[in-house]
Amino acid sequence: MTTTFSPIGHICTPFQSIKGMPIQPSGAIDVEGSVQIDAAYAEGLMDLEHFSHIYLIYVFHQSKGYQLQVQPFLDQASHGVFATRAPRRPNPIGLSIVQLLNRDGNTLRVKGVDMLDGTPLLDIKPYVPAFDVFQVSAVGWLENVQKGVRSQKSDRRFETSHPRTMR
Amino acid sequence: MTTTFSPIGHICTPFQSIKGMPIQPSGAIDVEGSVQIDAAYAEGLMDLEHFSHIYLIYVFHQSKGYQLQVQPFLDQASHGVFATRAPRRPNPIGLSIVQLLNRDGNTLRVKGVDMLDGTPLLDIKPYVPAFDVFQVSAVGWLENVQKGVRSQKSDRRFETSHPRTMR
Repeated sequence: MTTTFSPIGHICTPFQSIKGMPIQPSGAIDVEGSVQIDAAYAEGLMDLEHFSHIYLIYVFHQSKGYQLQVQPFLDQASHGVFATRAPRRPNPIGLSIVQLLNRDGNTLRVKGVDMLDGTPLLDIKPYVPAFDVFQVSAVGWLENVQKGVRSQKSDRRFETSHPRTMR
Repeated sequence: MTTTFSPIGHICTPFQSIKGMPIQPSGAIDVEGSVQIDAAYAEGLMDLEHFSHIYLIYVFHQSKGYQLQVQPFLDQASHGVFATRAPRRPNPIGLSIVQLLNRDGNTLRVKGVDMLDGTPLLDIKPYVPAFDVFQVSAVGWLENVQKGVRSQKSDRRFETSHPRTMR
């Protein structure tokens, strides 16, 4: 059983290629971009501007193929792809939380973008702490690296195989 | 441009129909379920068991069609569908954060399930506070309802049109 999705719009960012891209929105906290929603879906944005943060669910459209075990940018060891946010995954779906600065019709101005310019957008959901904030007891291989992630940039390790961010 | 995804497995939960389902994982915090990953993708789970919380990205497979403006279960007013987590959306993609209790081969035992039994799973990502916890300044129409959401159950409002949770 397969499911086919059509973009509801696209994301405009300063990033034309993977080089120098932040590896997470938290590393791109000051980077502004915009979300252009197709006119056909514009009505679905009503009241979204009253949320300060939103999820963007999108396609890693430049990601080709996948490996089940990968060496993430942030670590020297290999891990299962589902224990990472690597873009080359069986279903190349990206998930980022961004700050919503404002809405002008079907254009959203957002802050904290970490995806390539032109990324096809599949869905938007409101970010709500009551649903989305959890006290964790373990963050696996990211235990030692998560504190430093805000300032790290991607290297060119994956540039030839997939021009996308490596998370 | 469309994108076609194939499930990597499915989610087993106690919920055969929408009636009595929690409306969010936070309302289903004690409800256990399991995730069965297809053997072909099992290697991709390596080290996932070292994370206490994970994202499940899945298909609202029983959701048919959509409306751009909806009256969520939690409110009396209508809002744009992208300002809600309603399952009937242009691309019926679901997103839940669950607690990972353990992994036994390609089976994950999880806690906090809020989706129908048999839900097709598209992706798993680790939940990492450094990436995923934000201080919000506004949660829109959910401002007054988010405190009560942990104990609310869905009603039958959407049962005939789509047997899925209403978020």
